[in-house]
Amino acid sequence: MVQVAIIGYGTVGSGVAEVIERNAESIAKKAGQKIEVKYICDIRDFTDDPNQDKLIKDFSIILNDPDISVVVESIGGLKPAYQFVKDSLLAHKSVVTSNKELVATKGWELLKIAREQGVNFLFEASVGGGTPIIRPMHQCLAANQFDEIAGILNGTTNFMLTKMAREGLSFDEALSLAQQLGYAETIDPSADVDGHDCCRKICILASLAFGRHIFPDQVPTSGIRTVTTEDIALAGQLGYAIKLIGRAKKQEDGRVFIEVCPALVDRASQLSTVDDVFNGILVRSDMLGDVLFYGRGAGKLPTASAVVADIIDTVRSENIHQSLYWEKVDEDFLQDAAQDVCGHYLRVACADTAKVLEVAELVFGQLGRCESCGAYTAFVTAEQSQRDFENARDKLAALLPVENCMKVMPY
Amino acid sequence: MVQVAIIGYGTVGSGVAEVIERNAESIAKKAGQKIEVKYICDIRDFTDDPNQDKLIKDFSIILNDPDISVVVESIGGLKPAYQFVKDSLLAHKSVVTSNKELVATKGWELLKIAREQGVNFLFEASVGGGTPIIRPMHQCLAANQFDEIAGILNGTTNFMLTKMAREGLSFDEALSLAQQLGYAETIDPSADVDGHDCCRKICILASLAFGRHIFPDQVPTSGIRTVTTEDIALAGQLGYAIKLIGRAKKQEDGRVFIEVCPALVDRASQLSTVDDVFNGILVRSDMLGDVLFYGRGAGKLPTASAVVADIIDTVRSENIHQSLYWEKVDEDFLQDAAQDVCGHYLRVACADTAKVLEVAELVFGQLGRCESCGAYTAFVTAEQSQRDFENARDKLAALLPVENCMKVMPY
Repeated sequence: MVQVAIIGYGTVGSGVAEVIERNAESIAKKAGQKIEVKYICDIRDFTDDPNQDKLIKDFSIILNDPDISVVVESIGGLKPAYQFVKDSLLAHKSVVTSNKELVATKGWELLKIAREQGVNFLFEASVGGGTPIIRPMHQCLAANQFDEIAGILNGTTNFMLTKMAREGLSFDEALSLAQQLGYAETIDPSADVDGHDCCRKICILASLAFGRHIFPDQVPTSGIRTVTTEDIALAGQLGYAIKLIGRAKKQEDGRVFIEVCPALVDRASQLSTVDDVFNGILVRSDMLGDVLFYGRGAGKLPTASAVVADIIDTVRSENIHQSLYWEKVDEDFLQDAAQDVCGHYLRVACADTAKVLEVAELVFGQLGRCESCGAYTAFVTAEQSQRDFENARDKLAALLPVENCMKVMPY
Repeated sequence: MVQVAIIGYGTVGSGVAEVIERNAESIAKKAGQKIEVKYICDIRDFTDDPNQDKLIKDFSIILNDPDISVVVESIGGLKPAYQFVKDSLLAHKSVVTSNKELVATKGWELLKIAREQGVNFLFEASVGGGTPIIRPMHQCLAANQFDEIAGILNGTTNFMLTKMAREGLSFDEALSLAQQLGYAETIDPSADVDGHDCCRKICILASLAFGRHIFPDQVPTSGIRTVTTEDIALAGQLGYAIKLIGRAKKQEDGRVFIEVCPALVDRASQLSTVDDVFNGILVRSDMLGDVLFYGRGAGKLPTASAVVADIIDTVRSENIHQSLYWEKVDEDFLQDAAQDVCGHYLRVACADTAKVLEVAELVFGQLGRCESCGAYTAFVTAEQSQRDFENARDKLAALLPVENCMKVMPY
């Protein structure tokens, strides 16, 4: 029998306890032995909780109990999660977490300690909720070199964009609805709508894919506050959906370009049909080409089931996962945003399509379709570097009132 | 260093040799040691092949060489693949294969031998080409109980159906094109178009999901020969795409319903947008809900990269994969097709929509939309058991010329 401690008894932590209890038999079969929760550590009181006998408040009990070989960290945030995880690994216990902030900022260090201690530090649930992505990337795609990752990684903003597209809600209306449904934080929804959550997740995936830690503060990040119903309607007329995309791409010189931004995705692409609270992650690699992983990006039981799969994995594996690893390097291996090559969408406050097309073609050269909706006209440019695009956009803005622009994804 | 033998030097076998050579460095890093191909066994001659020094014709050399710890079987079919794989396992060598026929018919026996010998029998590439599905199912979803699996598992028929839908090709024209492009066999394309290939793959997934071997000859299987351009057009008008679906579903009494058939998939569903040669597999489980895996279902390098990922896995893992296992049982655990509950699509050779609707509602009760196209009218019934549906369909056929019917998938 393996004894596990859960630290943090919120949504994910209580879900982990529930999954372990509900599927105990099949989990024992897969792990090769019974898995039991011995402690649940939380500073709060939970009266009348069925796990009363397991609840403790002092983390050092877990640290000093040699029977505990796996610690589940589901506190979230960095304080005190970082210290608890570090201490657990140093005490020769494997750690499983769903904490994306922890992995995105301290992953390299915790992976290093885990390797030195010969234990596992696993975090499948930190990206995509329960949707498998971390393990497929480092195990199933182990024979591949990664070229690019692009994902719809935040369920809240994807729900909002879907509502804006399907029901014509404004950003504010969609945010209110997401808050009412508990998808977005009521007091400060910025982690979702300003792209920070998505940024942490693409950092984790890119670090794993390219072997070097990428920190969230290195990533140009913008959210969906600037996306209007008009943008969504015009993008639709042009054949695209608007999605909040986190993406990382290996350049020819070996450097990596990474960013988070709202972008246009072709309606023929699988990513464009990832709607509502679902996540979809496109992984492009040298041998395999494109694969896409799609599933519910959040939720108590989905996330908890990914945590429990990691527990089973570490219980079963006698050796540690060599392939789940990346390092911190000092050299600069990120490509400057100005060099990224993309097509661009522009929306201009002018209903005269012919005039917009004429002026825009003077600046951008030949364009494809041009669509108008109400007082606005929109079009998509050919691919060019961000630097060239910005110069051209500034020229256009001197001639016409440019209201918004977004990148067009090549998938 | 680990030495590997490849048996069968066709598309997949030569792809495996290529992937191991091209990504040697990163593969060694992930596996923890260098992986080298020592032998390639094939009865054919390959003059001027760069791997000339490795080519042998006598399989017993591999069997008797203690340096070979992993055998890659890429011959295909049962003879002599089955005997070679069995002998390799009995000689205490792990086996990696892409052979779906072998796994679908002999999986239980080979898994049992592998377990007794303490070696691995891995077959990620047998389903979905390079798209990860076997390992995510038994590792990432290990904390879940499976409810249902539904997949577009055959790239050739999916390419044909896509061409029929987009370009209005007939079945025969689409088949010719698939043959010209090398997607379908020229002499006998029945493995693809009659659903046998899809059947083997859903057998493998269902056996893994439900723990008991399901043999291809137990599965009601029909292919896409009966699907016409009119069906595709009418299904489109009704809001559906037509796809060849392999599906297996756990019933409330614990039994499993499994079948392969062309079916209507709602245009709002992720499965409906899996087009061309791509595969998409929907996995529904108790904790996680729906996840979908999408990628190229065939091709030399994608398939080979999945084989190599299995080689890396078995090289790295000191213990065998306990969770990748199923047994053969004698009791009958498959549900009879007559009990399956589904909505149905019917196409009638009558252009008078009002008349069709009136007659059909007498037989099926209230219906939703009814669409006509040329000389035909089509509609979709409410959900009912296959037995009830067939009775009603026979009644309708006595009144109107029913030309075709297909199931409507609930996803």
